[in-house]
Amino acid sequence: MKLTPEQLEQFGREGYLLFPALFSREEMQKLIDEVPRLYAMRRPENVREKDSDSVRTNFAAHMYSEPFARLARHPRMVEPVMQVFEEDVYMHQFKINGKMAFDGDVWQWHQDYGTWLNDDQMPTERAMNIAIFLDDVTEFNGPLMFIPGSHKLGVLDAAHDLTTTSYPLWTIDNDAIRKLVQRGGMVAPKGPAGTMIMFHSCLVHASGSNLSPWNRVSVYLSLCAVSNHIRRFKRPGYIAHRDFAPIQLLPDDCLRQAYPVDLPWKDGTPEEELKPMLKAA
Amino acid sequence: MKLTPEQLEQFGREGYLLFPALFSREEMQKLIDEVPRLYAMRRPENVREKDSDSVRTNFAAHMYSEPFARLARHPRMVEPVMQVFEEDVYMHQFKINGKMAFDGDVWQWHQDYGTWLNDDQMPTERAMNIAIFLDDVTEFNGPLMFIPGSHKLGVLDAAHDLTTTSYPLWTIDNDAIRKLVQRGGMVAPKGPAGTMIMFHSCLVHASGSNLSPWNRVSVYLSLCAVSNHIRRFKRPGYIAHRDFAPIQLLPDDCLRQAYPVDLPWKDGTPEEELKPMLKAA
Repeated sequence: MKLTPEQLEQFGREGYLLFPALFSREEMQKLIDEVPRLYAMRRPENVREKDSDSVRTNFAAHMYSEPFARLARHPRMVEPVMQVFEEDVYMHQFKINGKMAFDGDVWQWHQDYGTWLNDDQMPTERAMNIAIFLDDVTEFNGPLMFIPGSHKLGVLDAAHDLTTTSYPLWTIDNDAIRKLVQRGGMVAPKGPAGTMIMFHSCLVHASGSNLSPWNRVSVYLSLCAVSNHIRRFKRPGYIAHRDFAPIQLLPDDCLRQAYPVDLPWKDGTPEEELKPMLKAA
Repeated sequence: MKLTPEQLEQFGREGYLLFPALFSREEMQKLIDEVPRLYAMRRPENVREKDSDSVRTNFAAHMYSEPFARLARHPRMVEPVMQVFEEDVYMHQFKINGKMAFDGDVWQWHQDYGTWLNDDQMPTERAMNIAIFLDDVTEFNGPLMFIPGSHKLGVLDAAHDLTTTSYPLWTIDNDAIRKLVQRGGMVAPKGPAGTMIMFHSCLVHASGSNLSPWNRVSVYLSLCAVSNHIRRFKRPGYIAHRDFAPIQLLPDDCLRQAYPVDLPWKDGTPEEELKPMLKAA
Protein backbone atom coordinates (compact mmCIF):
# COMPACT_ATOMS: atom_id res chain seq x y z
CA MET A 1 0.00 0.00 0.00
CA LYS A 2 1.39 3.34 -1.10
CA LEU A 3 0.04 6.83 -0.45
CA THR A 4 -0.54 8.99 -3.53
CA PRO A 5 0.96 12.47 -3.84
CA GLU A 6 -2.56 13.84 -3.27
CA GLN A 7 -2.88 11.86 -0.04
CA LEU A 8 0.53 13.07 1.14
CA GLU A 9 -0.45 16.64 0.36
CA GLN A 10 -3.76 16.22 2.21
CA PHE A 11 -1.99 14.70 5.19
CA GLY A 12 0.39 17.66 5.30
CA ARG A 13 -2.51 20.11 5.21
CA GLU A 14 -5.11 18.44 7.45
CA GLY A 15 -2.91 16.24 9.64
CA TYR A 16 -4.87 13.04 9.03
CA LEU A 17 -6.05 10.58 6.39
CA LEU A 18 -9.18 8.42 6.54
CA PHE A 19 -9.23 4.99 4.88
CA PRO A 20 -12.85 3.76 5.03
CA ALA A 21 -13.17 -0.04 5.40
CA LEU A 22 -9.47 -0.61 4.66
CA PHE A 23 -9.78 -3.95 6.45
CA SER A 24 -12.70 -6.29 5.80
CA ARG A 25 -15.18 -7.25 8.46
CA GLU A 26 -13.82 -10.80 8.24
CA GLU A 27 -10.32 -9.50 8.99
CA MET A 28 -11.62 -7.56 12.00
CA GLN A 29 -13.66 -10.44 13.43
CA LYS A 30 -10.75 -12.36 15.01
CA LEU A 31 -9.63 -9.16 16.71
CA ILE A 32 -13.14 -8.32 17.92
CA ASP A 33 -13.58 -11.85 19.29
CA GLU A 34 -10.33 -11.54 21.24
CA VAL A 35 -11.21 -8.30 23.07
CA PRO A 36 -13.49 -9.70 25.83
CA ARG A 37 -10.75 -12.18 26.85
CA LEU A 38 -8.14 -9.41 27.01
CA TYR A 39 -10.42 -7.00 28.88
CA ALA A 40 -11.28 -9.72 31.44
CA MET A 41 -7.60 -10.13 32.36
CA ARG A 42 -6.43 -8.69 35.65
CA ARG A 43 -3.14 -7.40 34.26
CA PRO A 44 -1.58 -3.96 34.83
CA GLU A 45 -2.07 -3.35 31.11
CA ASN A 46 -5.82 -2.91 31.66
CA VAL A 47 -6.81 0.60 32.83
CA ARG A 48 -10.48 0.73 33.86
CA GLU A 49 -12.95 3.63 33.78
CA LYS A 50 -13.28 5.85 36.84
CA ASP A 51 -16.91 4.96 37.54
CA SER A 52 -17.12 1.36 36.29
CA ASP A 53 -15.21 -1.87 35.74
CA SER A 54 -15.23 -1.34 31.95
CA VAL A 55 -11.80 -1.16 30.36
CA ARG A 56 -10.85 2.32 29.17
CA THR A 57 -7.58 1.28 27.58
CA ASN A 58 -5.57 -1.93 27.26
CA PHE A 59 -1.84 -1.70 26.59
CA ALA A 60 0.58 -3.85 24.64
CA ALA A 61 -1.81 -6.61 23.54
CA HIS A 62 0.58 -7.34 20.65
CA MET A 63 2.96 -8.81 23.27
CA TYR A 64 0.49 -11.41 24.57
CA SER A 65 -2.37 -11.78 22.05
CA GLU A 66 -1.84 -13.66 18.81
CA PRO A 67 -4.32 -11.79 16.54
CA PHE A 68 -3.13 -8.40 17.76
CA ALA A 69 0.52 -9.44 17.35
CA ARG A 70 -0.27 -10.04 13.69
CA LEU A 71 -2.11 -6.74 13.33
CA ALA A 72 0.99 -4.99 14.73
CA ARG A 73 2.96 -6.27 11.72
CA HIS A 74 0.36 -5.54 9.03
CA PRO A 75 1.76 -3.91 5.88
CA ARG A 76 -1.45 -1.97 5.13
CA MET A 77 -0.91 -0.17 8.41
CA VAL A 78 2.90 0.05 8.64
CA GLU A 79 3.95 0.80 5.05
CA PRO A 80 2.27 4.21 4.71
CA VAL A 81 4.02 5.32 7.90
CA MET A 82 7.40 4.12 6.62
CA GLN A 83 6.67 5.98 3.40
CA VAL A 84 6.05 9.26 5.24
CA PHE A 85 9.15 8.95 7.42
CA GLU A 86 11.33 7.28 4.75
CA GLU A 87 12.68 5.10 7.53
CA ASP A 88 11.95 1.92 9.48
CA VAL A 89 9.54 2.27 12.40
CA TYR A 90 9.12 0.54 15.76
CA MET A 91 6.05 0.18 18.00
CA HIS A 92 6.13 2.96 20.57
CA GLN A 93 2.66 2.33 22.00
CA PHE A 94 -0.12 -0.18 21.38
CA LYS A 95 -3.57 0.41 22.84
CA ILE A 96 -7.03 -1.10 22.53
CA ASN A 97 -9.34 1.67 23.72
CA GLY A 98 -12.72 0.48 24.94
CA LYS A 99 -15.12 3.44 24.85
CA MET A 100 -17.58 0.78 25.90
CA ALA A 101 -21.35 1.01 25.52
CA PHE A 102 -22.88 3.23 28.25
CA ASP A 103 -19.61 3.48 30.24
CA GLY A 104 -17.11 4.94 27.74
CA ASP A 105 -15.87 8.23 29.15
CA VAL A 106 -14.37 11.28 27.43
CA TRP A 107 -10.78 11.82 26.34
CA GLN A 108 -10.06 15.51 26.79
CA TRP A 109 -8.35 17.63 24.09
CA HIS A 110 -4.70 16.64 23.73
CA GLN A 111 -1.78 15.96 21.43
CA ASP A 112 -0.04 12.63 21.78
CA TYR A 113 3.40 13.95 21.02
CA GLY A 114 3.14 16.33 23.97
CA THR A 115 3.10 13.33 26.30
CA TRP A 116 5.83 11.50 24.39
CA LEU A 117 8.06 14.55 24.66
CA ASN A 118 7.27 15.42 28.29
CA ASP A 119 7.27 11.91 29.69
CA ASP A 120 9.37 9.83 27.30
CA GLN A 121 11.83 12.36 25.84
CA MET A 122 11.02 11.42 22.27
CA PRO A 123 13.27 13.85 20.32
CA THR A 124 10.97 14.95 17.46
CA GLU A 125 7.46 14.52 16.05
CA ARG A 126 8.56 11.68 13.78
CA ALA A 127 5.99 9.25 15.20
CA MET A 128 2.56 8.49 13.74
CA ASN A 129 -0.78 7.55 15.22
CA ILE A 130 -2.93 4.89 13.60
CA ALA A 131 -6.53 4.21 14.64
CA ILE A 132 -8.26 1.05 13.44
CA PHE A 133 -11.99 0.70 14.17
CA LEU A 134 -13.04 -2.71 15.48
CA ASP A 135 -16.64 -1.51 15.73
CA ASP A 136 -18.66 0.74 13.46
CA VAL A 137 -18.08 4.34 14.51
CA THR A 138 -21.08 6.66 14.34
CA GLU A 139 -22.13 9.99 15.81
CA PHE A 140 -23.59 8.05 18.75
CA ASN A 141 -20.65 6.13 20.22
CA GLY A 142 -18.11 8.84 20.93
CA PRO A 143 -16.12 9.25 17.68
CA LEU A 144 -12.65 10.72 17.63
CA MET A 145 -12.74 14.49 16.98
CA PHE A 146 -9.90 16.32 15.21
CA ILE A 147 -9.02 19.98 14.72
CA PRO A 148 -7.68 19.92 11.15
CA GLY A 149 -4.38 21.69 10.68
CA SER A 150 -3.63 21.86 14.40
CA HIS A 151 -0.57 19.61 13.93
CA LYS A 152 1.27 22.47 12.22
CA LEU A 153 1.71 24.42 15.44
CA GLY A 154 4.04 21.92 17.08
CA VAL A 155 3.77 21.18 20.77
CA LEU A 156 1.17 23.33 22.55
CA ASP A 157 1.11 24.22 26.23
CA ALA A 158 -0.56 21.49 28.24
CA ALA A 159 -1.39 20.73 31.85
CA HIS A 160 -1.23 17.31 33.47
CA ASP A 161 -4.84 16.32 34.21
CA LEU A 162 -4.88 13.62 36.87
CA THR A 163 -8.52 13.86 37.96
CA THR A 164 -11.05 14.13 35.11
CA THR A 165 -10.73 10.53 33.96
CA SER A 166 -8.98 7.38 35.18
CA TYR A 167 -5.98 7.90 32.89
CA PRO A 168 -3.60 10.88 33.34
CA LEU A 169 -3.25 13.08 30.27
CA TRP A 170 -1.47 16.28 29.24
CA THR A 171 -4.48 18.35 28.16
CA ILE A 172 -4.77 21.65 26.29
CA ASP A 173 -6.67 24.57 27.81
CA ASN A 174 -10.03 25.81 26.57
CA ASP A 175 -8.86 29.15 25.18
CA ALA A 176 -6.27 27.47 22.97
CA ILE A 177 -8.87 24.98 21.69
CA ARG A 178 -11.29 27.81 20.93
CA LYS A 179 -8.65 29.56 18.80
CA LEU A 180 -7.60 26.37 17.01
CA VAL A 181 -11.20 25.55 16.12
CA GLN A 182 -11.86 29.08 14.86
CA ARG A 183 -8.91 28.52 12.52
CA GLY A 184 -9.43 24.91 11.42
CA GLY A 185 -12.92 23.84 12.41
CA MET A 186 -13.64 20.42 13.80
CA VAL A 187 -14.25 17.01 12.19
CA ALA A 188 -15.29 13.59 13.49
CA PRO A 189 -14.32 10.95 10.90
CA LYS A 190 -16.62 7.94 11.03
CA GLY A 191 -16.87 4.63 9.24
CA PRO A 192 -17.57 0.93 9.46
CA ALA A 193 -15.44 -1.56 11.40
CA GLY A 194 -12.15 -1.99 9.53
CA THR A 195 -11.74 1.73 8.83
CA MET A 196 -8.27 3.14 9.48
CA ILE A 197 -7.18 6.68 10.32
CA MET A 198 -3.57 7.82 10.13
CA PHE A 199 -2.98 11.00 12.12
CA HIS A 200 -0.07 13.25 12.97
CA SER A 201 1.35 12.98 16.48
CA CYS A 202 0.75 16.72 17.00
CA LEU A 203 -2.85 16.71 15.75
CA VAL A 204 -5.13 17.95 18.53
CA HIS A 205 -7.88 15.43 19.27
CA ALA A 206 -10.51 14.40 21.81
CA SER A 207 -13.55 12.15 22.04
CA GLY A 208 -16.88 12.35 23.84
CA SER A 209 -18.70 9.96 26.09
CA ASN A 210 -20.48 6.89 24.75
CA LEU A 211 -24.05 6.71 26.04
CA SER A 212 -25.14 4.36 23.25
CA PRO A 213 -25.60 0.59 23.52
CA TRP A 214 -22.83 0.13 20.93
CA ASN A 215 -19.18 -0.41 21.92
CA ARG A 216 -16.62 1.69 20.11
CA VAL A 217 -13.48 -0.41 20.45
CA SER A 218 -10.52 0.92 18.46
CA VAL A 219 -6.88 -0.05 18.25
CA TYR A 220 -4.48 2.88 18.52
CA LEU A 221 -0.95 2.14 17.38
CA SER A 222 1.86 4.66 17.63
CA LEU A 223 4.71 3.97 15.23
CA CYS A 224 7.94 5.86 15.80
CA ALA A 225 10.82 6.30 13.35
CA VAL A 226 13.62 4.10 14.70
CA SER A 227 16.12 6.99 14.86
CA ASN A 228 13.58 8.98 16.90
CA HIS A 229 13.29 6.43 19.72
CA ILE A 230 12.53 7.61 23.25
CA ARG A 231 15.39 8.60 25.54
CA ARG A 232 13.72 8.27 28.96
CA PHE A 233 12.02 5.27 30.52
CA LYS A 234 9.96 7.10 33.11
CA ARG A 235 6.71 5.32 32.19
CA PRO A 236 6.32 1.55 32.39
CA GLY A 237 7.57 -0.40 29.37
CA TYR A 238 4.07 -1.67 28.60
CA ILE A 239 2.95 1.94 28.02
CA ALA A 240 6.03 3.32 26.23
CA HIS A 241 7.99 0.48 24.65
CA ARG A 242 11.75 0.17 25.06
CA ASP A 243 12.39 -2.20 22.19
CA PHE A 244 13.35 -0.12 19.16
CA ALA A 245 13.79 -2.98 16.69
CA PRO A 246 12.11 -2.21 13.34
CA ILE A 247 8.72 -3.87 12.83
CA GLN A 248 9.09 -6.97 10.68
CA LEU A 249 6.19 -7.02 8.24
CA LEU A 250 3.96 -10.02 7.64
CA PRO A 251 2.17 -10.59 4.31
CA ASP A 252 -1.02 -8.69 3.49
CA ASP A 253 -3.23 -11.66 4.37
CA CYS A 254 -1.87 -11.95 7.92
CA LEU A 255 -5.28 -11.33 9.51
CA ARG A 256 -6.72 -14.24 7.55
CA GLN A 257 -3.81 -16.70 7.79
CA ALA A 258 -2.23 -17.75 11.09
CA TYR A 259 1.38 -16.72 10.52
CA PRO A 260 3.47 -17.53 13.61
CA VAL A 261 4.34 -14.63 15.90
CA ASP A 262 6.27 -14.32 19.17
CA LEU A 263 4.21 -13.60 22.29
CA PRO A 264 6.94 -12.82 24.83
CA TRP A 265 4.53 -11.53 27.53
CA LYS A 266 1.93 -14.29 27.24
CA ASP A 267 2.69 -15.58 30.74
CA GLY A 268 2.78 -12.13 32.33
CA THR A 269 4.51 -8.77 32.11
CA PRO A 270 8.25 -8.94 32.79
CA GLU A 271 9.14 -7.34 36.11
CA GLU A 272 11.40 -4.70 34.52
CA GLU A 273 8.59 -3.50 32.20
CA LEU A 274 6.34 -2.59 35.13
CA LYS A 275 8.39 0.24 36.54
CA PRO A 276 10.42 3.27 35.57
CA MET A 277 14.04 2.71 34.67
CA LEU A 278 16.15 5.65 35.71
CA LYS A 279 18.76 5.15 33.03
CA ALA A 280 17.55 4.42 29.51
CA ALA A 281 19.25 1.45 27.86
CA MET B 1 -49.73 27.20 13.99
CA LYS B 2 -51.55 23.93 13.44
CA LEU B 3 -50.12 20.42 13.07
CA THR B 4 -51.14 18.55 9.92
CA PRO B 5 -52.67 15.05 10.09
CA GLU B 6 -49.32 13.73 8.79
CA GLN B 7 -47.46 15.44 11.62
CA LEU B 8 -49.89 14.08 14.19
CA GLU B 9 -49.46 10.60 12.75
CA GLN B 10 -45.67 10.94 12.81
CA PHE B 11 -45.77 12.18 16.38
CA GLY B 12 -47.85 9.16 17.37
CA ARG B 13 -45.40 6.79 15.72
CA GLU B 14 -42.01 8.35 16.55
CA GLY B 15 -42.83 10.31 19.69
CA TYR B 16 -41.37 13.60 18.48
CA LEU B 17 -41.57 16.29 15.79
CA LEU B 18 -38.71 18.50 14.60
CA PHE B 19 -39.42 22.06 13.41
CA PRO B 20 -36.15 23.36 11.89
CA ALA B 21 -35.62 27.11 12.36
CA LEU B 22 -39.21 27.66 13.53
CA PHE B 23 -38.01 30.86 15.22
CA SER B 24 -35.72 33.30 13.43
CA ARG B 25 -32.23 34.10 14.64
CA GLU B 26 -33.47 37.62 15.38
CA GLU B 27 -36.22 36.18 17.62
CA MET B 28 -33.65 34.06 19.45
CA GLN B 29 -31.12 36.86 19.95
CA LYS B 30 -32.88 38.59 22.88
CA LEU B 31 -33.11 35.24 24.66
CA ILE B 32 -29.46 34.40 23.95
CA ASP B 33 -28.35 37.81 25.22
CA GLU B 34 -30.26 37.28 28.46
CA VAL B 35 -28.67 33.91 29.37
CA PRO B 36 -25.33 35.15 30.79
CA ARG B 37 -27.18 37.49 33.18
CA LEU B 38 -29.44 34.67 34.36
CA TYR B 39 -26.59 32.17 34.72
CA ALA B 40 -24.56 34.68 36.74
CA MET B 41 -27.32 34.94 39.36
CA ARG B 42 -26.80 33.24 42.68
CA ARG B 43 -30.36 31.98 42.96
CA PRO B 44 -31.53 28.48 43.93
CA GLU B 45 -32.92 28.18 40.40
CA ASN B 46 -29.35 27.76 39.03
CA VAL B 47 -27.98 24.21 39.30
CA ARG B 48 -24.29 24.08 38.42
CA GLU B 49 -22.19 21.24 36.91
CA LYS B 50 -20.47 18.80 39.25
CA ASP B 51 -16.94 19.72 38.16
CA SER B 52 -17.29 23.40 37.26
CA ASP B 53 -19.18 26.60 37.96
CA SER B 54 -20.98 26.38 34.61
CA VAL B 55 -24.77 26.25 34.87
CA ARG B 56 -26.25 22.86 34.02
CA THR B 57 -29.84 23.95 34.30
CA ASN B 58 -31.72 27.11 35.25
CA PHE B 59 -35.30 26.85 36.43
CA ALA B 60 -38.32 29.10 36.07
CA ALA B 61 -36.72 32.00 34.18
CA HIS B 62 -40.18 32.90 32.86
CA MET B 63 -40.97 34.09 36.41
CA TYR B 64 -38.14 36.64 36.57
CA SER B 65 -36.85 37.26 33.01
CA GLU B 66 -38.84 39.37 30.60
CA PRO B 67 -37.80 37.76 27.28
CA PHE B 68 -38.31 34.24 28.64
CA ALA B 69 -41.69 35.23 30.13
CA ARG B 70 -42.73 36.16 26.59
CA LEU B 71 -41.36 32.90 25.13
CA ALA B 72 -43.44 30.99 27.71
CA ARG B 73 -46.58 32.47 26.12
CA HIS B 74 -45.61 31.99 22.47
CA PRO B 75 -48.38 30.59 20.28
CA ARG B 76 -45.97 28.78 17.92
CA MET B 77 -44.90 26.72 20.90
CA VAL B 78 -48.14 26.40 22.91
CA GLU B 79 -50.80 25.93 20.23
CA PRO B 80 -49.55 22.58 18.85
CA VAL B 81 -49.57 21.19 22.39
CA MET B 82 -53.13 22.42 23.00
CA GLN B 83 -54.07 20.84 19.68
CA VAL B 84 -52.71 17.43 20.74
CA PHE B 85 -54.38 17.50 24.16
CA GLU B 86 -57.51 19.32 23.02
CA GLU B 87 -57.33 21.25 26.26
CA ASP B 88 -55.69 24.28 27.86
CA VAL B 89 -52.20 23.76 29.21
CA TYR B 90 -50.16 25.23 32.08
CA MET B 91 -46.40 25.48 32.58
CA HIS B 92 -45.28 22.51 34.65
CA GLN B 93 -41.53 23.10 34.28
CA PHE B 94 -39.36 25.72 32.60
CA LYS B 95 -35.63 25.09 32.17
CA ILE B 96 -32.73 26.70 30.34
CA ASN B 97 -30.18 23.90 30.05
CA GLY B 98 -26.60 25.04 29.57
CA LYS B 99 -24.59 22.16 28.10
CA MET B 100 -21.88 24.79 28.03
CA ALA B 101 -18.75 24.66 25.85
CA PHE B 102 -16.14 22.27 27.33
CA ASP B 103 -18.05 21.80 30.62
CA GLY B 104 -21.47 20.49 29.53
CA ASP B 105 -21.96 17.07 31.10
CA VAL B 106 -24.16 14.14 30.07
CA TRP B 107 -27.84 13.62 30.83
CA GLN B 108 -28.35 9.89 31.26
CA TRP B 109 -31.18 7.94 29.57
CA HIS B 110 -34.51 8.87 31.10
CA GLN B 111 -38.18 9.66 30.56
CA ASP B 112 -39.47 12.91 31.96
CA TYR B 113 -42.87 11.57 32.86
CA GLY B 114 -41.27 8.98 35.12
CA THR B 115 -40.06 11.80 37.37
CA TRP B 116 -43.33 13.70 37.17
CA LEU B 117 -45.21 10.60 38.23
CA ASN B 118 -42.79 9.47 40.95
CA ASP B 119 -42.05 12.87 42.44
CA ASP B 120 -45.00 15.06 41.54
CA GLN B 121 -47.89 12.60 41.24
CA MET B 122 -48.90 13.83 37.83
CA PRO B 123 -51.83 11.52 37.01
CA THR B 124 -51.24 10.69 33.32
CA GLU B 125 -48.84 11.31 30.43
CA ARG B 126 -50.85 14.30 29.20
CA ALA B 127 -47.86 16.66 29.39
CA MET B 128 -45.54 17.60 26.54
CA ASN B 129 -41.88 18.50 26.29
CA ILE B 130 -40.74 21.33 24.06
CA ALA B 131 -37.07 22.00 23.29
CA ILE B 132 -36.06 25.28 21.65
CA PHE B 133 -32.44 25.67 20.51
CA LEU B 134 -30.83 28.99 21.44
CA ASP B 135 -27.56 27.85 19.81
CA ASP B 136 -26.93 25.82 16.66
CA VAL B 137 -26.99 22.14 17.58
CA THR B 138 -24.49 19.90 15.78
CA GLU B 139 -22.93 16.49 16.30
CA PHE B 140 -20.21 18.22 18.32
CA ASN B 141 -22.04 19.96 21.16
CA GLY B 142 -23.96 17.13 22.78
CA PRO B 143 -27.28 16.96 20.89
CA LEU B 144 -30.38 15.42 22.41
CA MET B 145 -30.69 11.72 21.50
CA PHE B 146 -34.06 9.96 21.20
CA ILE B 147 -35.12 6.34 20.89
CA PRO B 148 -38.02 6.66 18.43
CA GLY B 149 -41.18 4.84 19.47
CA SER B 150 -40.03 4.38 23.05
CA HIS B 151 -42.89 6.57 24.29
CA LYS B 152 -45.38 3.81 23.47
CA LEU B 153 -44.25 1.61 26.34
CA GLY B 154 -45.46 3.92 29.08
CA VAL B 155 -43.42 4.39 32.24
CA LEU B 156 -40.34 2.16 32.36
CA ASP B 157 -38.53 1.00 35.48
CA ALA B 158 -36.05 3.61 36.63
CA ALA B 159 -33.58 4.11 39.44
CA HIS B 160 -32.87 7.38 41.21
CA ASP B 161 -29.34 8.39 40.19
CA LEU B 162 -27.98 10.86 42.71
CA THR B 163 -24.26 10.62 41.89
CA THR B 164 -23.43 10.63 38.17
CA THR B 165 -24.20 14.30 37.60
CA SER B 166 -25.08 17.31 39.74
CA TYR B 167 -28.82 16.89 39.15
CA PRO B 168 -30.75 13.85 40.47
CA LEU B 169 -32.57 11.90 37.78
CA TRP B 170 -34.68 8.74 37.48
CA THR B 171 -32.59 6.83 34.92
CA ILE B 172 -33.31 3.69 32.89
CA ASP B 173 -30.98 0.69 33.07
CA ASN B 174 -28.65 -0.36 30.26
CA ASP B 175 -30.40 -3.62 29.35
CA ALA B 176 -33.70 -1.84 28.81
CA ILE B 177 -32.01 0.81 26.63
CA ARG B 178 -30.31 -1.90 24.58
CA LYS B 179 -33.68 -3.53 23.85
CA LEU B 180 -35.41 -0.25 23.05
CA VAL B 181 -32.66 0.74 20.60
CA GLN B 182 -32.76 -2.67 18.88
CA ARG B 183 -36.45 -2.01 18.32
CA GLY B 184 -36.47 1.68 17.41
CA GLY B 185 -32.89 2.76 16.67
CA MET B 186 -31.54 6.09 17.82
CA VAL B 187 -31.71 9.61 16.40
CA ALA B 188 -30.11 12.94 17.30
CA PRO B 189 -32.17 15.76 15.72
CA LYS B 190 -30.03 18.80 14.95
CA GLY B 191 -30.60 22.24 13.54
CA PRO B 192 -29.82 25.93 13.70
CA ALA B 193 -30.71 28.20 16.60
CA GLY B 194 -34.48 28.70 16.61
CA THR B 195 -35.25 25.05 15.90
CA MET B 196 -38.01 23.51 18.04
CA ILE B 197 -38.62 19.90 19.02
CA MET B 198 -41.89 18.70 20.49
CA PHE B 199 -41.52 15.35 22.24
CA HIS B 200 -43.70 12.98 24.22
CA SER B 201 -43.24 12.95 27.97
CA CYS B 202 -42.53 9.19 27.86
CA LEU B 203 -39.99 9.37 25.01
CA VAL B 204 -36.66 7.98 26.25
CA HIS B 205 -33.85 10.50 25.76
CA ALA B 206 -30.30 11.39 26.79
CA SER B 207 -27.49 13.68 25.70
CA GLY B 208 -23.71 13.39 25.65
CA SER B 209 -20.99 15.64 26.93
CA ASN B 210 -20.03 18.86 25.14
CA LEU B 211 -16.26 19.00 24.55
CA SER B 212 -16.59 21.58 21.78
CA PRO B 213 -16.00 25.33 22.08
CA TRP B 214 -19.67 25.92 21.21
CA ASN B 215 -22.37 26.32 23.87
CA ARG B 216 -25.53 24.33 23.39
CA VAL B 217 -28.07 26.30 25.37
CA SER B 218 -31.64 25.07 24.97
CA VAL B 219 -34.93 25.97 26.60
CA TYR B 220 -36.97 22.97 27.76
CA LEU B 221 -40.60 23.71 28.53
CA SER B 222 -42.99 21.13 29.90
CA LEU B 223 -46.61 21.94 29.24
CA CYS B 224 -49.21 19.95 31.13
CA ALA B 225 -52.91 19.64 30.36
CA VAL B 226 -54.68 21.67 33.04
CA SER B 227 -56.86 18.72 34.16
CA ASN B 228 -53.68 16.64 34.57
CA HIS B 229 -52.03 18.96 37.09
CA ILE B 230 -49.69 17.51 39.71
CA ARG B 231 -51.10 16.29 43.01
CA ARG B 232 -47.99 16.38 45.20
CA PHE B 233 -45.69 19.32 45.98
CA LYS B 234 -42.67 17.33 47.12
CA ARG B 235 -40.25 19.26 44.89
CA PRO B 236 -39.72 23.01 45.18
CA GLY B 237 -42.22 25.14 43.29
CA TYR B 238 -39.51 26.54 41.04
CA ILE B 239 -38.88 23.00 39.70
CA ALA B 240 -42.47 21.71 39.52
CA HIS B 241 -44.88 24.63 39.32
CA ARG B 242 -47.98 24.82 41.51
CA ASP B 243 -49.90 27.39 39.49
CA PHE B 244 -52.22 25.53 37.14
CA ALA B 245 -53.73 28.55 35.43
CA PRO B 246 -53.93 28.10 31.64
CA ILE B 247 -51.15 29.86 29.68
CA GLN B 248 -52.45 33.12 28.24
CA LEU B 249 -51.08 33.42 24.72
CA LEU B 250 -49.36 36.50 23.35
CA PRO B 251 -49.38 37.37 19.63
CA ASP B 252 -47.00 35.60 17.24
CA ASP B 253 -44.59 38.55 17.17
CA CYS B 254 -44.08 38.52 20.94
CA LEU B 255 -40.34 37.86 20.64
CA ARG B 256 -39.97 40.94 18.47
CA GLN B 257 -42.36 43.31 20.27
CA ALA B 258 -42.14 44.08 23.98
CA TYR B 259 -45.61 43.01 25.16
CA PRO B 260 -45.92 43.54 28.91
CA VAL B 261 -45.65 40.45 31.11
CA ASP B 262 -45.76 39.84 34.86
CA LEU B 263 -42.47 38.93 36.54
CA PRO B 264 -43.65 37.89 40.01
CA TRP B 265 -40.26 36.45 41.11
CA LYS B 266 -38.09 39.28 39.81
CA ASP B 267 -37.04 40.29 43.34
CA GLY B 268 -36.40 36.72 44.48
CA THR B 269 -38.09 33.37 44.87
CA PRO B 270 -41.04 33.39 47.28
CA GLU B 271 -40.25 31.51 50.48
CA GLU B 272 -43.04 28.96 49.97
CA GLU B 273 -41.73 28.01 46.50
CA LEU B 274 -38.37 26.92 47.91
CA LYS B 275 -39.53 23.94 49.92
CA PRO B 276 -41.83 20.97 49.79
CA MET B 277 -45.40 21.50 50.80
CA LEU B 278 -46.88 18.47 52.51
CA LYS B 279 -50.41 19.16 51.49
CA ALA B 280 -51.04 20.14 47.88
CA ALA B 281 -53.24 23.18 47.44
